Amino acid sequence: MTARATLEAHVDRDLPTTLEDLRRLVAIPSVAAQRRGIREAAEAVAALLRAAGGAVTVLEHGGANPVVAAEFAGRSAKTLLFYDHYDVQPADPVDEWTVPPFDLTQRDGLLLGRGVADNKGDLLTRIAAIRAITAVDGGLPCRIKFVIEGEEEIGSVNFGAVVRAHAKLLAADACVWEYAERDSTERLHMVCGCKGICYLELEACVGHVDLHSMFGALVEGAPFRLVHALHTFKDERGTVLIPGHYDRVRRPTAEETEAVQRIPLDVVEDVRRQFEPARLLGEVDGPNAVRQLFFAPTCTICGIWGGYTQEGQKTVLPRAAHAKVDFRLVPDQDPHEVARSVRKHLDVLGYTDISLTVLAAEFPWRTDLSDPFVRLSQEVVEESTGRTVIVSPTSAGTGPRHDLAPLLKVPVVSIGAGYWKSRSHAPDESLRLSDFRETVLMLAHLMYRFGAQ
Amino acid sequence: MTARATLEAHVDRDLPTTLEDLRRLVAIPSVAAQRRGIREAAEAVAALLRAAGGAVTVLEHGGANPVVAAEFAGRSAKTLLFYDHYDVQPADPVDEWTVPPFDLTQRDGLLLGRGVADNKGDLLTRIAAIRAITAVDGGLPCRIKFVIEGEEEIGSVNFGAVVRAHAKLLAADACVWEYAERDSTERLHMVCGCKGICYLELEACVGHVDLHSMFGALVEGAPFRLVHALHTFKDERGTVLIPGHYDRVRRPTAEETEAVQRIPLDVVEDVRRQFEPARLLGEVDGPNAVRQLFFAPTCTICGIWGGYTQEGQKTVLPRAAHAKVDFRLVPDQDPHEVARSVRKHLDVLGYTDISLTVLAAEFPWRTDLSDPFVRLSQEVVEESTGRTVIVSPTSAGTGPRHDLAPLLKVPVVSIGAGYWKSRSHAPDESLRLSDFRETVLMLAHLMYRFGAQ
Repeated sequence: MTARATLEAHVDRDLPTTLEDLRRLVAIPSVAAQRRGIREAAEAVAALLRAAGGAVTVLEHGGANPVVAAEFAGRSAKTLLFYDHYDVQPADPVDEWTVPPFDLTQRDGLLLGRGVADNKGDLLTRIAAIRAITAVDGGLPCRIKFVIEGEEEIGSVNFGAVVRAHAKLLAADACVWEYAERDSTERLHMVCGCKGICYLELEACVGHVDLHSMFGALVEGAPFRLVHALHTFKDERGTVLIPGHYDRVRRPTAEETEAVQRIPLDVVEDVRRQFEPARLLGEVDGPNAVRQLFFAPTCTICGIWGGYTQEGQKTVLPRAAHAKVDFRLVPDQDPHEVARSVRKHLDVLGYTDISLTVLAAEFPWRTDLSDPFVRLSQEVVEESTGRTVIVSPTSAGTGPRHDLAPLLKVPVVSIGAGYWKSRSHAPDESLRLSDFRETVLMLAHLMYRFGAQ
Repeated sequence: MTARATLEAHVDRDLPTTLEDLRRLVAIPSVAAQRRGIREAAEAVAALLRAAGGAVTVLEHGGANPVVAAEFAGRSAKTLLFYDHYDVQPADPVDEWTVPPFDLTQRDGLLLGRGVADNKGDLLTRIAAIRAITAVDGGLPCRIKFVIEGEEEIGSVNFGAVVRAHAKLLAADACVWEYAERDSTERLHMVCGCKGICYLELEACVGHVDLHSMFGALVEGAPFRLVHALHTFKDERGTVLIPGHYDRVRRPTAEETEAVQRIPLDVVEDVRRQFEPARLLGEVDGPNAVRQLFFAPTCTICGIWGGYTQEGQKTVLPRAAHAKVDFRLVPDQDPHEVARSVRKHLDVLGYTDISLTVLAAEFPWRTDLSDPFVRLSQEVVEESTGRTVIVSPTSAGTGPRHDLAPLLKVPVVSIGAGYWKSRSHAPDESLRLSDFRETVLMLAHLMYRFGAQ
């Protein structure tokens, strides 16, 4: 039996245990936005890492959700850091799930449940790889660290401060970020950066009491006032209209532009297939759509509410209305500056009565694509899977890479178990079991290659 | 003891019974929008009328909420018809009430509860007047009829059909409409017309599933699409932007214009005091604000919702968003035509994917101010209260007068027990007990004068 075959055999033997570990983790509804199950999830994760042989430190920082740090000894002095998070998105709309969101379900080769893809499943692929190598070799080929936060889904508000306070504990030579997806032609997208975010909650409050809507002849209700204000945030082609919004947008480098050109059009087609939109923003198509996905700032109303929202009619002029709005940012946009610009924009237009709360602010970040770790990771995934890897200079999504990468001076790439229908943040979030297994083996291979450098 | 003093003494003796009747009626949460307590309320109303000596017919019409009709014999052949409704608005926002909405509370001279002002309290003033006259005189000075529907708060969708089917049963010489209010200087506003309404529910549905909001770079979410569409309905001065919306607006007659000039500015100041808006629509002031309140069509977002509306942040691109929008109409606007114009407007702008449901459609109506019954009613109220009456050519609100007045060929005026802080449709809806008593006596006086004509 080859070394690889021995390892594979162990991974397969360990798989039922790993899935049972995942089931227990998914059963903890660690929804950071709703402050549920946080401490319980952190303790469960700490216990798993300890059981795998790690030295675990639970980092408490003011009122922040605990951050779980772990360190595993290794034969080489080189240190590989894994970033993960134990918090998940809310399960709503709950009635659109076909399985209970917090009860891991296996169906048709899929693992279904909230957080399976984002990112509890990935965390377990990493632990499974460590368990397999340790079992087979009696030790790890390189030093491994983990940093696992509990506020990723609410904008990692305290993560930067925790990393700054514990930079020495987390010091490493390279970092593997949370998850990565296979596209519909099975190519894994290795992601080397992410967008930033400025997530705002707006409240229009125009009066003391709700009024009978007949008084709509005299005064404006809060929902219409909010509608008029939000209308000025973005045009129908998707261009953000907040003054100065594009001033700091950095031109992609030649390497980044080339990398995006190599990204298959499927990343756009997958969205079309899932969502079936009538049109894409700005009527873009082909390579322009791909560029827009990765390089364009966005503005999305994630939620809006005000007045009577139940069955039938109520003729009311509501005094208050709310919206949650997220801006995705690209280098070198500054989320705090965006919040200030939105405030100023509202004030200039006379919407001084609309209040604004910053719920999350994260900077964008991209790893230099010429870093040797990018090349190594690409080779490892290609060797391990036999398939071409797509190197993406950035995710269209957000993560707190900026809180970690510049401070620890590490290149950061994403390797993970997702696929194009993982439906992170949506009902019926899932991983394919075959991808889960493949990812465990891929990560084990990365540990060997990284230690052998 | 004068005849008037005898009547007053009886009204006062009967008051505890009347308030107990009101308590029982308020306790039935007859929220038409939520299909609660409807039949129970209709039966309770029928029982009250029967007990007062009326011949009651409960009119069933297809799936409509029952309409309670009643007739009381009288000495003169002249017939006075009272219009009321036993349905009420929803109680929400429930947590803004300081009393239980469906449990009549007496506090500081007030009667508090959902439906007390609109319009269960008024119904009981009318019944109390009949009971008092009958007790004192052994009979009524004129014939009295009632028509009490159960769908007023959801747009009286079937009322017109019921009136048409039972026009003979309801035939009368004049009609007293549901409620009327005292302003903050205690003048009762006698209302001779009402606006119409077109109440629409819009649904923007732009995709099959909610997506991660990172895809906001490629596709538009439903809330932003709805915001862009709603923005085109009305400008920030309150002008409705649906093409053709003002084409059918009839110029007020000289009498209507004069009557509105006599309406005190307090009707506007009361709104300012209660709501404390930063500004009035169109920056109007003084008599222009009063004219705008009574003669201007409106467009109000009564409710809006979509996406994540709970605590904290969820980075989601919602596939669906909804709004409830009411248009208040003036003669001769046609609610069905308004609905068609909104549909066409959306289509022309490319919002063919936004669906539209008509939840209510009522025509506006105004009684000719030169009708003798308008003069008689004004005299009766002035004689009865010793205070000046304000004759209003129209309410700023809506009622189904158009379903009744042109068919039965009756003048329609509003006389009632409300006051400027009654907060119909809002939390802590109330009547003052002193107004309640005053209204019973006023209605008794009207019955005498009407019968003596």
